[in-house]
Amino acid sequence: MNIAQLLDTTAEWLTGGNSRQGVVISSRMRLARNVGGASFPTWAKKPEREKVYESIMPALLKLPEFQNPLLAEPMDKLTVLEKQILVEQHLISREHAAKAGGSGVAVSHDRSYSIMVNEEDHLRMQAFAPGLQLREVWSMLDAVDSGLESYLQFAFSPRYGYLTACPTNVGTGMRASAMLHVPALVLNEQINQIVQAVGKLGLAVRGLYGEGTEAMGNLFQVSNQQTLGESESEIIERLQKVIQQIAEHEQNARAVLLEKRPRYVADQVGRAHGALTSCYSISSKEALNLLSILRLGSDLDMLPRASRQVIDELMIVTQPGHLQSRCDQKLNADERDGMRADLIRDKLATINKPDTRQVLRIDTRPQDS
Amino acid sequence: MNIAQLLDTTAEWLTGGNSRQGVVISSRMRLARNVGGASFPTWAKKPEREKVYESIMPALLKLPEFQNPLLAEPMDKLTVLEKQILVEQHLISREHAAKAGGSGVAVSHDRSYSIMVNEEDHLRMQAFAPGLQLREVWSMLDAVDSGLESYLQFAFSPRYGYLTACPTNVGTGMRASAMLHVPALVLNEQINQIVQAVGKLGLAVRGLYGEGTEAMGNLFQVSNQQTLGESESEIIERLQKVIQQIAEHEQNARAVLLEKRPRYVADQVGRAHGALTSCYSISSKEALNLLSILRLGSDLDMLPRASRQVIDELMIVTQPGHLQSRCDQKLNADERDGMRADLIRDKLATINKPDTRQVLRIDTRPQDS
Repeated sequence: MNIAQLLDTTAEWLTGGNSRQGVVISSRMRLARNVGGASFPTWAKKPEREKVYESIMPALLKLPEFQNPLLAEPMDKLTVLEKQILVEQHLISREHAAKAGGSGVAVSHDRSYSIMVNEEDHLRMQAFAPGLQLREVWSMLDAVDSGLESYLQFAFSPRYGYLTACPTNVGTGMRASAMLHVPALVLNEQINQIVQAVGKLGLAVRGLYGEGTEAMGNLFQVSNQQTLGESESEIIERLQKVIQQIAEHEQNARAVLLEKRPRYVADQVGRAHGALTSCYSISSKEALNLLSILRLGSDLDMLPRASRQVIDELMIVTQPGHLQSRCDQKLNADERDGMRADLIRDKLATINKPDTRQVLRIDTRPQDS
Repeated sequence: MNIAQLLDTTAEWLTGGNSRQGVVISSRMRLARNVGGASFPTWAKKPEREKVYESIMPALLKLPEFQNPLLAEPMDKLTVLEKQILVEQHLISREHAAKAGGSGVAVSHDRSYSIMVNEEDHLRMQAFAPGLQLREVWSMLDAVDSGLESYLQFAFSPRYGYLTACPTNVGTGMRASAMLHVPALVLNEQINQIVQAVGKLGLAVRGLYGEGTEAMGNLFQVSNQQTLGESESEIIERLQKVIQQIAEHEQNARAVLLEKRPRYVADQVGRAHGALTSCYSISSKEALNLLSILRLGSDLDMLPRASRQVIDELMIVTQPGHLQSRCDQKLNADERDGMRADLIRDKLATINKPDTRQVLRIDTRPQDS
């Protein structure tokens, strides 16, 4: 694999592209499928897993979506660093990064598809798009699913639907999700209320890297919980509606912050810029949290429009694996924190202090004489 | 009293003047004296306290040191704000600020003397000087003490020495102290060790405003504990030696930080500058702590020489009372925090980011071609 290909360009969906004010960064669809007659990966011995891999990968590479793929390799051909970068770009799960021979991954040329082979299921297929595009990612992935069905026989029960290793995925095998950036809901301390309300609707709110991970950088994944008893389109419609509502809550929270606590907004955004442009050592968590607040400042027009792309890219490239890939020698945590700070200062050097005049309602019109 | 006089100029000893690298900011001498035949202030009724006040104040104003005094008033003539400013400038104790009629304060023209009348004792006389000048403040205060003795009869026992309200002051009635700025000892986590060692030598280490107050801004007061069984000059010699040693430890700690953790130093000083120049709301405690680190940066030549005076003045004028005095309306804590941030940003606007090249050993010489 050519690691440079993963690093040189940044997939549009990773950073939210041009989505309106950037609350919904990206949409993701995932389908779990298993090949009929073969044991699930966690039960299968290595030769059986390898056989499944050998049946899936060639089929995948026949599909139009996987022509000239960025990556199509067994896991044991990837270095630890390459796996880490795939995790940081949300292309594979943390669990899959721990896999070796008998498992594999294929990433399409434009990184809008990523397929894990022999993760928890034989196939974990994913499609990504920037902003809120759940229907689109569904139709993208449906095409790949149908394409593969001409080559593979999926384990399917007329009564339950698609069979999966974990019962929570049986039925549609589908998990639709969106990544949301909701700094104002966090600053306003409304986020816990939202998480609880969303939970009652049968949807899940998770941290940056999915299940069981911490929320960092005010980034949350919202996804469906159920896969049984509802059709794909019903699930998508419901999720779409809830995500739109959360995005509206975030917009309202921003308006409330600006209206009620303008100085707090100026302080938070100002200090985030101050720390990021002055630090000489910074952890990935602190960097992500501060970049999140700076991104809010950009959304609120306190920073020049061009800043947004710089901030979005920094949110990706300051992660440990991405940072390590810039250096020939293995870095320890202290060295990474130093290098991260140097990189951030360098990239933000041209971005001036946030303009707080509008937020603080300081008149910027020329004075009458 | 003209509050503007207290605010317009800053006494040299308050900010350390030009003392070498500014570890020892100031020296202070305090003598406790009581007028013979009158009850101690805490036991005396108001008329008796007033009688003592009426005997002391005119005597004081006859001394050459108290010609054209900055202030010579009974406490009930001072506003709450004026009292607070006197506390923040270390001219009176917090306890004395709570006093009303029957107590008073006199501050000499150049603010190098401050006399509290009817605090815990009838007289608490103080002399101040910048840097480490314990012998000098002693001889300054000795002159006032002798001068007053020609007008007043002090309570004195041939066996115990000067008698005081609290037995811990009996004897010399003297407390000599120095204010030290030891950020490197705090950053290196050596300060607790030093506090313990100094305690074993019969000396006390206290916070910014003396007994029972918190250490803020890496500022500590070191003083003698005992007043009995040692002469004034013995106490001073011993204290002087210990303070010099602490100052040397601080210099060593700075050298160790620069040698072993240069990036940490750059990060701390950089971030302090970043936060102070970018904040829109800041508490007095956070401001003092950050200004302390910026002062270290100035001592380490990471900031232009002119920055030192700005920083030192900000350490005084960002205190709540000083800040309130800049505004006609009574400010609440939130408003003060906002105004403090505005003041700091304004004063530091001309001071560029710390130059970290020397600390990080980045070659700044012109390259050979």
